[in-house]
Amino acid sequence: MPNYTVTPISVLIEQFERLPGIGSKSARRLAYHIMKLSKGEIEEFSSALRDIHLKVKYCKICSNFTDEDVCSICSDKSRSKLVICVVEEAKDALALERTQEFDGVYHVLHGAISPLSGIGPDDLTIKELLTRISSDSPKEIIMATNPDVEGEATAMYISKILKPFGIKVSRLAYGIPVGADIEYADEITLSRALRGRCEI
Amino acid sequence: MPNYTVTPISVLIEQFERLPGIGSKSARRLAYHIMKLSKGEIEEFSSALRDIHLKVKYCKICSNFTDEDVCSICSDKSRSKLVICVVEEAKDALALERTQEFDGVYHVLHGAISPLSGIGPDDLTIKELLTRISSDSPKEIIMATNPDVEGEATAMYISKILKPFGIKVSRLAYGIPVGADIEYADEITLSRALRGRCEI
Repeated sequence: MPNYTVTPISVLIEQFERLPGIGSKSARRLAYHIMKLSKGEIEEFSSALRDIHLKVKYCKICSNFTDEDVCSICSDKSRSKLVICVVEEAKDALALERTQEFDGVYHVLHGAISPLSGIGPDDLTIKELLTRISSDSPKEIIMATNPDVEGEATAMYISKILKPFGIKVSRLAYGIPVGADIEYADEITLSRALRGRCEI
Repeated sequence: MPNYTVTPISVLIEQFERLPGIGSKSARRLAYHIMKLSKGEIEEFSSALRDIHLKVKYCKICSNFTDEDVCSICSDKSRSKLVICVVEEAKDALALERTQEFDGVYHVLHGAISPLSGIGPDDLTIKELLTRISSDSPKEIIMATNPDVEGEATAMYISKILKPFGIKVSRLAYGIPVGADIEYADEITLSRALRGRCEI
């Protein structure tokens, strides 16, 4: 097939295909969309990508992504340094930010303990969390790791390490998602929702 | 919200959001995926985008995208120049190529006639098609524009212009898609499938 050879278009399609959740059909649609853009628009996109490795680094305090030495949340004086919310990934912190419910600070682990994938505690930013706790002496650590095996294990591991510090360690509540149908909720979620029921 | 300011990350998220079929959630997921890539991987992606406006141009013959003066299909001597398949977009030619059923050549209109969007015949590559027909005198023109109002109007318009040339002009068959359920097919498609029935 003559047009299956390597061309700038096929290279771009392949780049899109590597992204999570983008199949070969979407990759082709995206690449052909790019070809309809102006030179300036393509240049903006290309630079936005390049800027990621040129400008983005880890926050010295919380390990979140930032383009400064200290991220905008850690350097925000209106936010309480006494409550640290521990998340697996930077995008989890972003999701929590959107709730506008939390005015503490974050700590990004960049993963979860997963012996099957060969990820141990030393591959995460747990050491940085301990240093931070020793110096800032927060009142509460909220474990907001994912509600799956790895996230649970990570939350348990960290809460055990934190025992000697005598700090309150909490976990995000389990329950049925807002808008969901009880009929279709799985038993584990439902039993957790029952156990965690609150007075109204 | 401190982290809603313009940062390299928010710029990249916005770039992904502009792509067709990518919502704000997907855009965030893609941007955070990029941040986990190595410098080299990001550089490859960024260059692939840049190469599109640096290297890709229109084929002098069929107006398809190519990185040469003449595209790989038009310059392929094993393909018949006597049958020209007219498509709206380059991606439609790619879809037809994947069937491995067609060994003629293409003509890419880069759109369809749409008075509502202000796209007239002069905005398409119809003039180029006529020049091509005068010089190459093909035997058949297959109209493979989309089966919607604009695609139909474009097919009708071009077939009328081609009348004086005395060339056979055909249209892709309408019918029920392979694998579809007759029960759920719409009436127009079904009646077209009936009219176009073939002996078996």
